[in-house]
Amino acid sequence: MALKSFIEVDDESHFPIQNLPYGVFKPQPSSSPRPGVAIGDFVLDLSQISSAGLFDGPLLKNSNVFNQPNLNKFISLGRPVWKEARATIQKLLSATEPTLRDNAALRQKSLLPVSSVELLLPVVVGDYTDFFSSLHHTKNCGLIFRGPQNPVLENWYHLPIAYHGRASSVVISGTDIIRPRGQAHPSGGSPPYFGPSLKLDFELEMATVVGPGNELGKPVDINNAEDHIFGLVLLNDWSARDIQAWEYIPLGPFLGKNFGTTISPWIVTLEALEPFACEAPKQDPPPLPYLTEKESKNYDISLEVHIKPAEHENSSVVTRSSLKHLYWTLTQQLAHHTINGCNLRPGDLLGTGTISGPEPEARGCLLELTWNGQNSLSLNGLDRKFLEDGDEVTLTGYCKGNGYTIGFGNCSGKIVPPAP
Amino acid sequence: MALKSFIEVDDESHFPIQNLPYGVFKPQPSSSPRPGVAIGDFVLDLSQISSAGLFDGPLLKNSNVFNQPNLNKFISLGRPVWKEARATIQKLLSATEPTLRDNAALRQKSLLPVSSVELLLPVVVGDYTDFFSSLHHTKNCGLIFRGPQNPVLENWYHLPIAYHGRASSVVISGTDIIRPRGQAHPSGGSPPYFGPSLKLDFELEMATVVGPGNELGKPVDINNAEDHIFGLVLLNDWSARDIQAWEYIPLGPFLGKNFGTTISPWIVTLEALEPFACEAPKQDPPPLPYLTEKESKNYDISLEVHIKPAEHENSSVVTRSSLKHLYWTLTQQLAHHTINGCNLRPGDLLGTGTISGPEPEARGCLLELTWNGQNSLSLNGLDRKFLEDGDEVTLTGYCKGNGYTIGFGNCSGKIVPPAP
Ligand SMILES: [Ca+2]
Ligand SMILES: [Ca+2]
Ligand SMILES: [Mg+2]
Ligand SMILES: [Mg+2]
Ligand code: NI
Repeated sequence: MALKSFIEVDDESHFPIQNLPYGVFKPQPSSSPRPGVAIGDFVLDLSQISSAGLFDGPLLKNSNVFNQPNLNKFISLGRPVWKEARATIQKLLSATEPTLRDNAALRQKSLLPVSSVELLLPVVVGDYTDFFSSLHHTKNCGLIFRGPQNPVLENWYHLPIAYHGRASSVVISGTDIIRPRGQAHPSGGSPPYFGPSLKLDFELEMATVVGPGNELGKPVDINNAEDHIFGLVLLNDWSARDIQAWEYIPLGPFLGKNFGTTISPWIVTLEALEPFACEAPKQDPPPLPYLTEKESKNYDISLEVHIKPAEHENSSVVTRSSLKHLYWTLTQQLAHHTINGCNLRPGDLLGTGTISGPEPEARGCLLELTWNGQNSLSLNGLDRKFLEDGDEVTLTGYCKGNGYTIGFGNCSGKIVPPAP
Repeated sequence: MALKSFIEVDDESHFPIQNLPYGVFKPQPSSSPRPGVAIGDFVLDLSQISSAGLFDGPLLKNSNVFNQPNLNKFISLGRPVWKEARATIQKLLSATEPTLRDNAALRQKSLLPVSSVELLLPVVVGDYTDFFSSLHHTKNCGLIFRGPQNPVLENWYHLPIAYHGRASSVVISGTDIIRPRGQAHPSGGSPPYFGPSLKLDFELEMATVVGPGNELGKPVDINNAEDHIFGLVLLNDWSARDIQAWEYIPLGPFLGKNFGTTISPWIVTLEALEPFACEAPKQDPPPLPYLTEKESKNYDISLEVHIKPAEHENSSVVTRSSLKHLYWTLTQQLAHHTINGCNLRPGDLLGTGTISGPEPEARGCLLELTWNGQNSLSLNGLDRKFLEDGDEVTLTGYCKGNGYTIGFGNCSGKIVPPAP
């Protein structure tokens, strides 16, 4: 029988005692931010648990990592500390443990309805990198922009392609996304023009949250890369396809991407995801030795994208994919990122790139779903080629366990027009 | 007659009383970092001046901006504060002002030989962006890689092209640069291989240090962009041309650039540079209205690159250029960066891109100087196509005023081999 908490957790909840994802929140608008863990519809205030002396393991006793405004210090400490924290929290929340269950005063202080708190970015993001690691996404983009001759470029099969994104505009789920303005250049003879993007898109992604970093000049070995991964979040790499198309040659995406990137508030740890590990796709050609791992694994995380137009009460599902489709693994991405000596820091985000599956219904962005606006998508009767003002896009992700669900909650943002 | 300091400053010094660039330093290895200003061969400890109550203007009185480990807080406050600080410091250091000149105890505490202190990164860099704004550099790269047909792509003339670089690996002048390893793919049929870069290069650049930032979704108007620029530094965007060539399509440079970026320790303010403002090159086609400025200006800053091979006592000058050659101005870069709503933060770096002049001797990187290794450069008898281990590369920059020099000091790094 599955482990249970003394807190009532619905079977469909993303946050049973098997999950215990970390976030940062403010109980009141005037409170200081502090780390918390999601349990059912509640958040456990780790600063209170810490102040009560309940982190009593050898590594976290007397530590101030949970009296910080972000998770960077905690996640910098590495897996032995994470395992100790998880064991402590899981025990405290379990149905059979009286310490918290039977202490009404402490429960009152430390268990808050998540609906009553403000969730914040869980980490200070030093650098945000975005990979391009789904073969299906890559192939579809190649077919759309270059045709059937050679949709996947040669280098793609040899290394996990990536670009540096913008750290300053990473925002938490629920933040409105202001439609960007910029230059675009329609094909044909007319000159470039300036205006609000007409091809605003989402990208269904997840991201690695880096735990311990590495020193400049000291690459992380592929077989140690997992030790540098604290956990995963959902990530929406909002993209303005018209701005991107005009600007990106030869130095890559810039203003077409850096106006906003939304992440989900809860970081789900690799410990919670371990039961859902699966074999990664076979790589052909085989990667170079520095990218060859003893065990090549993905996680089978079901992913969905929902869009709710302003005119509708309910959202429509527009795609269903899975992280298991990723060609380059999270550990290959991380090891590759450091192979030249580049230093990662705790809290860095490594986006996976758009996660498309093999089926047309599993395409991870509107560019693919509408084939760059050639087709329309029907949202319960409303047509969409790209996002309209008022559209609310929600990514969600979960793994179905035996009698429980490990989920990521929502990663949402609503499109609003730019100020005139 | 030019303003003089009571401190003896050599005519050739980069740091007369007309300059007063800001940096951050530690007097002793165990001291806390604090802001300082360069004057001749000394650094003025602003934390001491502040503690002595000498910042007595209306804006900085009782402020703690100089009791911080970096300049971010000070530079976030904007030009009126910067002008007040400059006036206070310039007066304190002037030959005719007794306050500091005649106070031996305070002089002892606050004026330290720069050779005795450790200089640190002056700002915490939230995001580092690198532009591509020199027409001569762009044209040369196009000629080398695509031939004479169409060396400059159409979009280049319409917008300041840029990519996001890596903030974590921005290092201060004097930090060794470890030769990166990575994948490269020689043209021809052979597969990609892994090893130390064989085409390691410097790039002669400068960078804007952003002062006040802007809110997400609120672009900076082109005619207010200057108010967001605190000052400039020298920047060497070290580049591994072989890694870059294989990885950069379609998302731009990544591991070919992010192993290290060196900046000079002193931020020279726009106030100090104002006498050296000059008209920027005429732009044809004219830019879109959001990039059209009332006054389009560059600064005439002479730039040099010196290389000292390990075998030599002295360095050789390999290029002489000037910031005045920049096609897209610093204010156009900043306004463009925010036009989609992207938010800048105090301390962000906006690199200019390699600054090449029209003459072959004014090319800003070895790629151009040796035409991608087709020719050799002679360093006092030693041949160079790309950088060798032990080579020390120094960028320097200065403006010649009437009886004084406003300079940036040195931006140096020595190439060392990677650990085996
Ligand atoms: Ca993406
Ligand atoms: Ca550059
Ligand atoms: Mg984005
Ligand atoms: Mg660099
Ligand atoms: Ni055209």
